[in-house]
Amino acid sequence: MKTPVCAMLGIDFPLLAFSHCRDVVAAVSRAGGFGVLGATGHTLESLETELAWIDAHVDGKPYGLDVLIPENLGARGETRDAVADRVPAGHRAFVADLAARHGVDLPEERRGTGAPVPFDPDLALAMLDVAFRHPIRLIANALGVPPAAMIARGKAAGVPVAALVGAKEHALRQVAAGVDLLVVQGGEAGGHCGEVSTMVLVPEVIRAVDGRVPVLAAGGIMTGAQMAAAMAMGADGVWTGSVWLATPEAETSEAFRAKMVAATSRDAVRSRSRTGKPSRQLRSAWTDAWEAPDAPAALPMPLQSLISEPALRAADRATERGVDAARDMVTYFVGQGVGLVEQVRPAAQVVQDFKLEFAEAVERMTGLVAE
Amino acid sequence: MKTPVCAMLGIDFPLLAFSHCRDVVAAVSRAGGFGVLGATGHTLESLETELAWIDAHVDGKPYGLDVLIPENLGARGETRDAVADRVPAGHRAFVADLAARHGVDLPEERRGTGAPVPFDPDLALAMLDVAFRHPIRLIANALGVPPAAMIARGKAAGVPVAALVGAKEHALRQVAAGVDLLVVQGGEAGGHCGEVSTMVLVPEVIRAVDGRVPVLAAGGIMTGAQMAAAMAMGADGVWTGSVWLATPEAETSEAFRAKMVAATSRDAVRSRSRTGKPSRQLRSAWTDAWEAPDAPAALPMPLQSLISEPALRAADRATERGVDAARDMVTYFVGQGVGLVEQVRPAAQVVQDFKLEFAEAVERMTGLVAE
Repeated sequence: MKTPVCAMLGIDFPLLAFSHCRDVVAAVSRAGGFGVLGATGHTLESLETELAWIDAHVDGKPYGLDVLIPENLGARGETRDAVADRVPAGHRAFVADLAARHGVDLPEERRGTGAPVPFDPDLALAMLDVAFRHPIRLIANALGVPPAAMIARGKAAGVPVAALVGAKEHALRQVAAGVDLLVVQGGEAGGHCGEVSTMVLVPEVIRAVDGRVPVLAAGGIMTGAQMAAAMAMGADGVWTGSVWLATPEAETSEAFRAKMVAATSRDAVRSRSRTGKPSRQLRSAWTDAWEAPDAPAALPMPLQSLISEPALRAADRATERGVDAARDMVTYFVGQGVGLVEQVRPAAQVVQDFKLEFAEAVERMTGLVAE
Repeated sequence: MKTPVCAMLGIDFPLLAFSHCRDVVAAVSRAGGFGVLGATGHTLESLETELAWIDAHVDGKPYGLDVLIPENLGARGETRDAVADRVPAGHRAFVADLAARHGVDLPEERRGTGAPVPFDPDLALAMLDVAFRHPIRLIANALGVPPAAMIARGKAAGVPVAALVGAKEHALRQVAAGVDLLVVQGGEAGGHCGEVSTMVLVPEVIRAVDGRVPVLAAGGIMTGAQMAAAMAMGADGVWTGSVWLATPEAETSEAFRAKMVAATSRDAVRSRSRTGKPSRQLRSAWTDAWEAPDAPAALPMPLQSLISEPALRAADRATERGVDAARDMVTYFVGQGVGLVEQVRPAAQVVQDFKLEFAEAVERMTGLVAE
């Protein structure tokens, strides 16, 4: 296939796969798609390790890196310990109580480790230095307009810069800021998301940007038939996330993957309970608790992550030790497309299935007009 | 084109158009689509008049009727006057104040007219008697499982019964109840809607019903490219509503149509302020007022319609008299697809554009795989 995105990224099948897992990234790129590693949560050192591993396992195929740089972050310049000091005691108690009721042991909070503040923009920019020492073919920012420095460094390195948008107005701002590629993500997507659906937002943005940059469709896309649908509307390819969480390679726990198989689309809810901003995730005792009338309001980014991430990782670990009550609490970012997950499949198999389903969908369309 | 829906309804292009306006219904069917008249708001007499008019103007082409029968309606068996007596004085005062601030004269409330209760299920069933005296080819219920009597009478008359669903579980219930056709409507749709998007819900339901009944996709579909997208995912055709509101034939006011052209997709909000159930409509001073912290909670169906409909019709009329302040209040049911409306077009032109865009989308797809 030859779309502008295929040419830009050096691929034949414009299926982009966002994953926090290096195995998924390498497997997708090897299978003919394009893996994009999520950098969030990494230090400069661990990112270097991941990218070196990918280089050794990707058979020379192209891949990219996604950073998450919020446009406005209250904590800028603060240490993680200073940010942690701002978490109210009531919020900590709320989480401790919830964890205790589900048999989840919260880890001791470690201070003075020098660990990064979640969503630290300066760290994300420093990660680009690490990334440019590797043969990356795309840098993406999935949270607001990429900083001018990021766009400038992408251009200097000859690496396209992608940005994720959830509204037409944001798309126009991103194009004006100089991004090379738009990921247009409907509100059904997992993670941070807007409210306009993929079916509407993709044609709305394609019309508004009028060919100035290519557009990838995102949000709810789990199959090659949906990819064909997005491209029938004029998208140059698709950006996917949730579908890779149901692969054995993924960073998800077995408990979460089992929940994905069992879930319907209505189980993916929008909640501030994970990061402080509205993001879509699997409904669980965690999201329910934060919706309860007695719950405290979610804290602003990045504070909420300091209480959510340790608790939810601990819940995953508890399920691995066989604590049944912990399963109810387990959740992760996931889109409404979770309703289409019927089984756990290896990442390479997912790519092959996309190709097959895409071809079948095109055949279905040509069959319709031939009659 | 030959899909199961084309065969069922006797059409070549499976574009179904829901409209409260007989002109739209006739124009769409004449142009090769399939118009479906919304019966809500009619009396038996006015419905007879509308259907006779359609028969005289549809050139023998097929068309259908949509009734709106809620599964559970608190007011069943009550008169409109009795229901009106249950509207709290505070709600009336809230609406009166809002109207006054926008220069909108509320009409005198008329009692003892024998006018029907909104969404009266007995009236809706009686409408079927009227409908079966006309050559209708489809009866649809856009609100819950059609009553057994409706399904039985459709089968007796040899007229297929369609039901609208917003969740997989509802689809399975409808199929079990015996409906012949599912309208699978994503949460981006105008009017009463669920929360799962078209892009996800359509393949999820198609998989779940597994060919037992054909599926029409609905929600956000305003163009032939989106229709192609839905059919690439396996839908047998599409059901549309909002796109017909921006035709000169529609029941909408000029003020509302101007707002449609100006709106983006984010201006279509989900609110209980019109019918008491969540329904998507254009954001306006009306919807904003009901979201305000001091606003009363929306009343349950059918009470809310008794205060919303007269006020909003009065706002439309005020704009026709040149009252500028009334424009801010004007709203109507509309989906996120409103962001794709660029101009007011005649209904027949919309059908032609759908056909052209559909063909272009198929060509785009075949071009992609040919390369």
